[in-house]
This record gives sequence, C-alpha cells and structure tokens, in this order.
Amino acid sequence: MNLLILKAKDISNNIACVTGRQLDHILNIHSAQKGDMINIGLLNGPIGSGKILSINNTNMSLELTLDLPPPKPLPLTMIVALPRPKMLKRILQTISAMGVKELYLVNSSRVEKSYWQSPLLSPEAIEEQLLLGLEQAKDTILPAVHLRKLFKPFVEDELLNIVKDSLNLVAHPATDIRCPIDCDTPVTLAIGPEGGFIPYEIDLLEEHGFKSTHIGERILRVENAIPAIISRLFPG
Amino acid sequence: MNLLILKAKDISNNIACVTGRQLDHILNIHSAQKGDMINIGLLNGPIGSGKILSINNTNMSLELTLDLPPPKPLPLTMIVALPRPKMLKRILQTISAMGVKELYLVNSSRVEKSYWQSPLLSPEAIEEQLLLGLEQAKDTILPAVHLRKLFKPFVEDELLNIVKDSLNLVAHPATDIRCPIDCDTPVTLAIGPEGGFIPYEIDLLEEHGFKSTHIGERILRVENAIPAIISRLFPG
Repeated sequence: MNLLILKAKDISNNIACVTGRQLDHILNIHSAQKGDMINIGLLNGPIGSGKILSINNTNMSLELTLDLPPPKPLPLTMIVALPRPKMLKRILQTISAMGVKELYLVNSSRVEKSYWQSPLLSPEAIEEQLLLGLEQAKDTILPAVHLRKLFKPFVEDELLNIVKDSLNLVAHPATDIRCPIDCDTPVTLAIGPEGGFIPYEIDLLEEHGFKSTHIGERILRVENAIPAIISRLFPG
Repeated sequence: MNLLILKAKDISNNIACVTGRQLDHILNIHSAQKGDMINIGLLNGPIGSGKILSINNTNMSLELTLDLPPPKPLPLTMIVALPRPKMLKRILQTISAMGVKELYLVNSSRVEKSYWQSPLLSPEAIEEQLLLGLEQAKDTILPAVHLRKLFKPFVEDELLNIVKDSLNLVAHPATDIRCPIDCDTPVTLAIGPEGGFIPYEIDLLEEHGFKSTHIGERILRVENAIPAIISRLFPG
C-alpha cells in the first residue's frame, strides 16, 4: 500500500479515523507511530498526507492535508472477456493501478459460464480489488466496472455509443497490423479470453469499427497482455 | 499451451513420443485425436508441427516437421530483485514468454532472506516455469537464469562485463527521467523488489553506469512493471 485511501464518511473536520485492514497494514507493515506522516488519498478526491495523532491496535486518528490532484486518468476504455475468478482479482487490481477508469467485463464464447457465478463479481468484491489497485498506484479515482453477460447485444446495441470518439482496437495475434505506440487520442481496447475471441466475435467487433492489432510474435497470457498493451498505448 | 516443446531426447528419426503433463494437456484441453496437427517446438531449436500418429492415455507419437526459426530473442538482459516465491513462478513465466534470454535474480535490502531458501530456485523448478512461458509464447529458446545472493559483489565485480555494450536502466519511480520507448539498442534493465531498491543500491547502480528512469506517475507491482517496461522498450 503506497497510499491509504479514506472515504468521506471516515473524515470529520480534517480528522480521519482508520480501523480494520488499513490499520493492520499501517501497524504491521509500516510499523507507524504517533507523529509519523503517511500518504493519504480521499476516494474520488485529492491526495496528500496525514499526521498520526494517535494509534493503537483498534484505531488510528490522523490530521489530514489533502491538497494535490490524483494522477490523470488514462483516456482508455477497456472491454475484457471475463477471466476465471482467480485471475479476475489480479486483473481488476492491474486495471485500477494502471489508471483505466472504464471497464466492461463481457461474455465470450471461450468464457466458462460458471465464471459469471463468482462471488468476486459482487459490487463490494469488485470495489475491494479496485481499491487495492488504487492504493498500490497512489490514485484515488475508482474505475467504473460494467458487467455484460451477453456479447452480441452488448456489441450491437451499446458499443457504438461507447466508442464513437475513440480509436478502437482489439488485441488479436492473427493479424499483420501492429498495435500503435504512444497514442494521443482516446482508445477503446478489447481483449479476449485465454485462447482469444472466436472468429465470429472478431468479425462482429470489426463490423462495429474495431481494428485487429497484434503486439508482437509472442502470445501473452491476458494478465501480461493487459499491462503490455496499456504501456505501449500510453507509456506515461 | 500454444506450442508443445519437445527435447532432443524425446525424438528419434523425426518421430516424437510424448507422455506426462504435456500428454494430459493435449488430451484434456485440446481433445486431440489421431491425425490432428499440433504446434511443436524443439527446445532451443526450430518450430513447426506434428501429426498425431497414435494417442492414448499413456503416450502419443508424433511425426514432426520442424522448419521455422523461433521468434527473435529480445536484446534485453534483466536484473530483478528476487521476488517472494509465489510471485517468482509468475515472473519466470512472464520473462520467458516475453522473450528475455538473460535473467539475473539478485539480492536487495528489501528481499527477505527466506526467499533464497525456496525450492522454486532449484534448476529443475526454474526450468519448469520457463518452459511454461515458452509454451505460452510459442518460443523455444530457454532463458539463462543466474542467482546472485550478494548484491554488492555482483554489481562491483560482475556487472561491468554484463552491461558494457548496452543502455543500462533501473526502474525507479523517484526520478524525473522518463524510460525510453521503442529502443533500437540492447538494454540491461534492473527492477527492484516491492518497495524498490534502497538509496544505497540505486547509488551503486548509478555509479556503475545505470540511469534511473520512471514509467509514469503510478507505482506498479513488480509483476505488472515487468511486462509494462519490456513492452515500452521493445513494443514488437
């Protein structure tokens, strides 16, 4: 955790009260003491620092100075085929840590139906992973995550509104077109499941304005493809 | 597995015999049958295809045509602070899948001593993870992995020989210098542990020709920083 993220409800008159997982981390990993300064962010708000006024095993109180803006969001909307639950946790953290603010988790022929039953898809469980990503990256703006269990209606009825002002790319190893580098326009990026989107899905995306692009000869797992593609599109 | 990698000892007169983990994968995931063609690579050799001559629950025999070169290695040597064992497995797979062929796993002040006792550091265990990365990426050239338990002697006595013809970078968020994009020279890249190299280690690397560079405002976990940095250095 590089930034302790507080919610507005935890703060009153610039004094915050911290308990639970975050307090445990501050005590056990940072070994913080009264008087120490720690990096603080307000969820969906500014970042800054907090001075520890008191700390014990059950709560910590902090005096806050929050006067800096969070990092600029990436101009990137991602459409990702729902990964298996174990990988979903890491991918939510990654996307959040890298500055993506709009994520559509969609169905695809190669997504196992059971993945949609995972308790990790509850709003609370998703927010937990996104917060871990923000705390890692020192960001405060929570990404919006949308679940779309039907691929065809999503593409046909909703996608045109999402992509109308962006460069629209789908990661697809079986193409000769190289994914662009260091973009200066908004991008909507679709990434399939392990094994890729099936040809019907690629065709449907291409009919709706997406261009298939590759990122090299080597085929990467989704968890590596995501940071690799984001990093070449927006190298920061 | 996108490529089944065979060793020379498994092949005789262009006929290969496959058993164990690889056979299980071909049977259970690919549901392959007699007559099917599958992607084959010879470890440290060419790639091509194999026609299934016979297959049952205990072994499969294949007729091979191996006539294509593997993907070109990245001109990248990596120096990575030894990660905790669970992450080590993923990082070995990632580095192998992305085309890195020289990896030094080194000590650092923030590496826990116990990590060096992990059975995952045996040559057999390391090779297993590297092979999984090659099978994912359709590559055959096994990376060389070197373990260096003492940071200072490694930097002072060995590093100058490793880096003499390369651009030498250390990933370090606390700098203003942006990591380059789309390099046309060999690179040696050092990545610290979670929490980063300590100032003494950064100073020692800088004294030995390394330049500190950042990849953006956000601080990434090592498992994301690795594909993100490789991808911007060599976007493929």
